[in-house]
Amino acid sequence: MTVEIINTGSELMLGRVLNTHAQWLGRRLGDLGYNLVRQVAVPDTGRSIQDAVREALGRVQVIIVTGGLGPTSDDLTRQLIAELLGKKLLTDDRVLREIEEFFAVRKRPMPPSNAVQALAPEGAIVLYNPNGTAPGLAMEVNPNPFGSAPAWIFMLPGPPRELHPMFKDQVVPLLKAKCPPGADVVCETWRSTGLGESALAERLEPKLAAYVALGADLGYCAHYGAVDVRIIARGETAAEIVRSAGAIIEAELGASIFGRNDDTLESVVVRELTERHKTLALAESCTGGVISHRITNVSGASVPFLGGFVTYSNEAKQKFLGVQAETLAQHGAVSEPTAREMAEGARRAMGADYAIAVTGVAGPTGGTEAKPIGTVFIALATVDGTKVIRMLNRWDREAFKAVTGNQALELLRRAVLGIA
Amino acid sequence: MTVEIINTGSELMLGRVLNTHAQWLGRRLGDLGYNLVRQVAVPDTGRSIQDAVREALGRVQVIIVTGGLGPTSDDLTRQLIAELLGKKLLTDDRVLREIEEFFAVRKRPMPPSNAVQALAPEGAIVLYNPNGTAPGLAMEVNPNPFGSAPAWIFMLPGPPRELHPMFKDQVVPLLKAKCPPGADVVCETWRSTGLGESALAERLEPKLAAYVALGADLGYCAHYGAVDVRIIARGETAAEIVRSAGAIIEAELGASIFGRNDDTLESVVVRELTERHKTLALAESCTGGVISHRITNVSGASVPFLGGFVTYSNEAKQKFLGVQAETLAQHGAVSEPTAREMAEGARRAMGADYAIAVTGVAGPTGGTEAKPIGTVFIALATVDGTKVIRMLNRWDREAFKAVTGNQALELLRRAVLGIA
Repeated sequence: MTVEIINTGSELMLGRVLNTHAQWLGRRLGDLGYNLVRQVAVPDTGRSIQDAVREALGRVQVIIVTGGLGPTSDDLTRQLIAELLGKKLLTDDRVLREIEEFFAVRKRPMPPSNAVQALAPEGAIVLYNPNGTAPGLAMEVNPNPFGSAPAWIFMLPGPPRELHPMFKDQVVPLLKAKCPPGADVVCETWRSTGLGESALAERLEPKLAAYVALGADLGYCAHYGAVDVRIIARGETAAEIVRSAGAIIEAELGASIFGRNDDTLESVVVRELTERHKTLALAESCTGGVISHRITNVSGASVPFLGGFVTYSNEAKQKFLGVQAETLAQHGAVSEPTAREMAEGARRAMGADYAIAVTGVAGPTGGTEAKPIGTVFIALATVDGTKVIRMLNRWDREAFKAVTGNQALELLRRAVLGIA
Repeated sequence: MTVEIINTGSELMLGRVLNTHAQWLGRRLGDLGYNLVRQVAVPDTGRSIQDAVREALGRVQVIIVTGGLGPTSDDLTRQLIAELLGKKLLTDDRVLREIEEFFAVRKRPMPPSNAVQALAPEGAIVLYNPNGTAPGLAMEVNPNPFGSAPAWIFMLPGPPRELHPMFKDQVVPLLKAKCPPGADVVCETWRSTGLGESALAERLEPKLAAYVALGADLGYCAHYGAVDVRIIARGETAAEIVRSAGAIIEAELGASIFGRNDDTLESVVVRELTERHKTLALAESCTGGVISHRITNVSGASVPFLGGFVTYSNEAKQKFLGVQAETLAQHGAVSEPTAREMAEGARRAMGADYAIAVTGVAGPTGGTEAKPIGTVFIALATVDGTKVIRMLNRWDREAFKAVTGNQALELLRRAVLGIA
């Protein structure tokens, strides 16, 4: 069962907003066994949306269109698709009542423009929206004037907090009932750090050639110092092929694999700390709180995570972490001794089993010849002592934070798991 | 001059990675005056990439393809495009030497698979890659077998830290020389918070109707409690139209507008604090460091930002922020008095002019009838006293953090600017 996603919105074309729908929907469709074959983004002008839907109707069996269902003048998706398919738009009384209630509950007057959201193409199934005013729509295109087989079109509202529950609660049951996924698809991803993409491929490819010959897809994806290895297989033997290939990947890469599929370094660290009844404190300088942010994105993080410090100033490093004035004077804030004292100070202050500290030069200014931009010291304090590593992460600010965060979390993961 | 972006990679289809290229390139192309008319993502299989390029050649004058230039078995972009256009692949000696040097500098053996990256279609311009092993390629398609006019294809490596500098340093000059943008395009975005999208549109649309009649595009985009209003105009009068429409938007929305274009709440706050020589401290509980992370994403944040606390445990709230045990016992960690004491404690501990504190129930567990999931108290302590607001942000963990962060930063912005 092939699927295409069409994201509408001129803000996407202008790069004013990041398209997170493609990833979010892609992940869920893949896990359900659907085959996403294309994702398209177009401006919210008439011709572009209709062109994209017409082309998709000639290509796939399921089309998911996002955005353009709201009350403003650039929200034209439902009108344009109804026009393309020659369907009248009719007011749905329940939707109109719900929109009126949405505003009544919030004690705000309903702007009259909102009534357009109660329109639905004739024959469409309305997907009610408990989290906003714009309902979604599902419609079968049968006969399909632009393709050789009938198709389904799902139109979903743009805001993620409206789209996500609507997809999970209403689209998935409809999809399974009306367009069940075809052959079994099994996809599994192994997540590693510490090895380059090509070195990793050189090691794996000879050993996995037999599975590729059987039709398995082998893929790689590198991001911020981590490399994913992905195996996809189809048909009756899919699960067995992925299981066997996975055993080879695990044997070959060993402790460089930190998890599978939805695992992240932070989710693994939180899980392993929790299982061992161990606690964590953080002291961040140049990473500015991103490690704390990532740790607390994990549900249940409050069990092992006691808290963190973001100590940008030298005064804060001294006052809260007990870094010595002489250490700062002699070695500087970006140094092995300062990182060590920060980690030991955070561990002591919070009474934690483990503490991670990071101090470095994120750039774009502040580098010296001895400590160029990108220089970072990462310290891990434990009951057994303190270890400090020095890295050079010479990328832009965002990438610097992401890579440094991965290195710090990997240092912690290896310590918690007792990996040399 | 019309442009299409083609992002290749099965990991995009499977939702294993977030596509940030579309936004990054879209923003820059728009600012340069190019008209991005479509973005497409396809799996890295032969048929899909060739189909997408063939269709784009029938539609636009500039095609930017990302990904699939690396050394592994799923990197097929250059081979597939050469095949589609009937071009031979030839080894570029300079690239081969550079790849060998890349590994020599890092004291790692060069895996032989890397040599494929030195291949270029005959006639292509090689874009050298100082940040990785895969060079980019630029080629004119003239005659264009799939369209009515010649076109240019740019192939760029997938990793952002390789693609970004290659685009800025090599693609932009080539684009300007070979495919200069046509008519003037002026695009401006005003960023607001505190008003709903439809309420905002109801206020603006009657006043901006004259500019829309003159051909200006008016667009809206809502994210996490902030709404962007965008005006695009083309032609000789574009700048004047955008300036006049902007004056109306500013008069109508007033202090709800926090910035324009690339401004973010955090960049505005950092700028305004810096100009006034004021300092900031943070105390985050349920937001887990995301406000600190956002503030420190701003270059120059170290001037006003002294530091932050992420106090997940009650003990940390007492020890570092001086929250009273009785306050926690009587009112709970999620309460107006606790938020107030956290902000005042952070301000005192860091010696800051302003301190923001956040405590709430992010969920998915922990809600009560009196304080349901999503309840959050945001406190702002200043020299003039402390203000606490209570909000209900009932969304998933990620959205909760984003919305709460916006509310906290907006509270601070209004205080710093003296807006009632």
